[in-house]
Amino acid sequence: MKINGKSWETIWIDESYCVNVINQTLLPHQFKIEKIENDNDAYFAIKNMIVRGAPLIGVTGAYGLALGLKSNQSDENLTRSFKLLESARPTAVNLSWALKRVYNKIIDLPQNQRFLVAIEEAKIIAKEDIWMCSKIGDMGLEIIKEIYLKRSIKDKNKPINILTHCNAGWFAAVDWGTALAPIYKAHRESINIHVWVDETRPRNQGASLTAFELSGEGIPHTVIVDNAGGHLMQNGLVDLVIVGCDRATSNGDICNKIGTYLKALAARDNNIPFYAALPVSTIDWDIDNGIGSIDIENRSSEEVSHICGLDNNGDINKIRIIPKQSKCLNPGFDVTPASLVTGIITEKGICKANKESLKSLYSK
Amino acid sequence: MKINGKSWETIWIDESYCVNVINQTLLPHQFKIEKIENDNDAYFAIKNMIVRGAPLIGVTGAYGLALGLKSNQSDENLTRSFKLLESARPTAVNLSWALKRVYNKIIDLPQNQRFLVAIEEAKIIAKEDIWMCSKIGDMGLEIIKEIYLKRSIKDKNKPINILTHCNAGWFAAVDWGTALAPIYKAHRESINIHVWVDETRPRNQGASLTAFELSGEGIPHTVIVDNAGGHLMQNGLVDLVIVGCDRATSNGDICNKIGTYLKALAARDNNIPFYAALPVSTIDWDIDNGIGSIDIENRSSEEVSHICGLDNNGDINKIRIIPKQSKCLNPGFDVTPASLVTGIITEKGICKANKESLKSLYSK
Repeated sequence: MKINGKSWETIWIDESYCVNVINQTLLPHQFKIEKIENDNDAYFAIKNMIVRGAPLIGVTGAYGLALGLKSNQSDENLTRSFKLLESARPTAVNLSWALKRVYNKIIDLPQNQRFLVAIEEAKIIAKEDIWMCSKIGDMGLEIIKEIYLKRSIKDKNKPINILTHCNAGWFAAVDWGTALAPIYKAHRESINIHVWVDETRPRNQGASLTAFELSGEGIPHTVIVDNAGGHLMQNGLVDLVIVGCDRATSNGDICNKIGTYLKALAARDNNIPFYAALPVSTIDWDIDNGIGSIDIENRSSEEVSHICGLDNNGDINKIRIIPKQSKCLNPGFDVTPASLVTGIITEKGICKANKESLKSLYSK
Repeated sequence: MKINGKSWETIWIDESYCVNVINQTLLPHQFKIEKIENDNDAYFAIKNMIVRGAPLIGVTGAYGLALGLKSNQSDENLTRSFKLLESARPTAVNLSWALKRVYNKIIDLPQNQRFLVAIEEAKIIAKEDIWMCSKIGDMGLEIIKEIYLKRSIKDKNKPINILTHCNAGWFAAVDWGTALAPIYKAHRESINIHVWVDETRPRNQGASLTAFELSGEGIPHTVIVDNAGGHLMQNGLVDLVIVGCDRATSNGDICNKIGTYLKALAARDNNIPFYAALPVSTIDWDIDNGIGSIDIENRSSEEVSHICGLDNNGDINKIRIIPKQSKCLNPGFDVTPASLVTGIITEKGICKANKESLKSLYSK
């Protein structure tokens, strides 16, 4: 996708086997490329959220494991590097999956071939991710087109208003993203859209990353506080909600960034379609009902008590916004029950949020 | 209520006819008393939100009008002062009501009596507000007691978890507040309570004022982002929701701080009682249905794009949290339909959120 008119991906490798990533901790205020030259750099980038988003963490891990072999392709070094990288985000399923994929690809090879094959495998993982997100975009585009086609003549010129929560855009992947992919596709087909961007406290990924992404692509958008979406829906200002998903259950429950559930409730109360966009790899077939079964991580309370931004001097500064003596709780995710979900957009097609419909994706 | 063990009200007048207020723009980081010596000072305090909350603005206006007469009790000066103060917050119904009350009390008096009678009338308005809020507290206390009494023996020791949005505490009034009054009463009766405090973006009145108020009274509380309430309700961590109200319609719709509607939806979805606490003067008998009929003010977009807090140097600093090229929209309030409201707590009693039940309050 574009930033200031130039096309980028979130991660790429150059001819000298140096991996480059966009530093996401400084956005939207500063745009900086970080170089990843070895597995320690990759560990640091994942650990400190220079890269974030399940697919991008996976790709970074895969490249990191390859780079770890650059000067020592032994079994011992491979194991050390694997463990190091896995420990950067122990709960990230996608990281562990990507590391295993590279590991399995090279473990039986002669040692002197491992580095280059691992690099190629990481490249393939990145390419597959781009393809998958692009497909999710194509599928979701059909929903937007349908809304446009159903409009009466007098409303054809009005933008289709899409609300999204958090950042499930290309910054969370290599390119396109999940929830934002249909939006990018619609914009490229010249469909008149406008995006309501939930700021998404506590980390404000909407206000910082989603708004920055949409600006780069020239897509009209407006940032709102997380409290505002219900009011906009009550007043006919939202046509469609699309969110990402960290984990879907076999019944179609959607575990996503904290606050997603509240938007789903408001969407249902106002008869607005609510979709989750995700690769099928996100579906956890071991869990049926999400509420109570999915362990929701309570993150650092400093994410609630403090907030980062650009001060008057142009420096990135952190300020405290609650009294020193008050406690905070910071649950990172919530579960939106399948009953509130109109449909699930995947690279294999769109389905209803229930077991039968999710299973049918695999026969396509 | 208490701050650091000492009892305060938000506004008081001393023997030399100087009005004192707590500067609410600096809380929770700095505690500072501001002196209001004339009507210009009162205008400034209201205009710049040094005082805020409908009842407190009314009382400040009343004192301001009295002080305006200190050295000139003529009709011309009274009219000038009235117009000045009314213009500080033109949409605040309570301000205009309090100014008219003082005006009507003194307009037919000999000029040399006006100043002192106006001061007395302002004092009475302040006292009535305290009495009214205290009564709301007594009424709401019964709801909390009922929840406690209905508990099984094994749960008696667990705190009753009450979620509130924004600040409808004593900082919005002279003392007690509305939504927080039942909480203060319950705490004084040694009922084991814990309050979930929505931070309440964009202005963060929950994170700053409500958390600070509860700290002062030693009431256990935890600040959460506005996104978190639904998740807590899904997981049995909320027993009761109490919010304030800026305007209630004759049908029982509740217009309150943006985001209230989302919490009401989540409360209903999880069978949790949802109450609004308000003086009956808040009921607007001219409006039946709130959605679409109540004009919702879009406030400054800087409240969304920027946020204030305490920096590392101990200074209050403002930072930007969205990209420069992104727009913001900042609707200040939303409407919670009566169908989501379990009941309305007033100084005259608790009633259902419908016209008949609201009317019945007046016969009590």
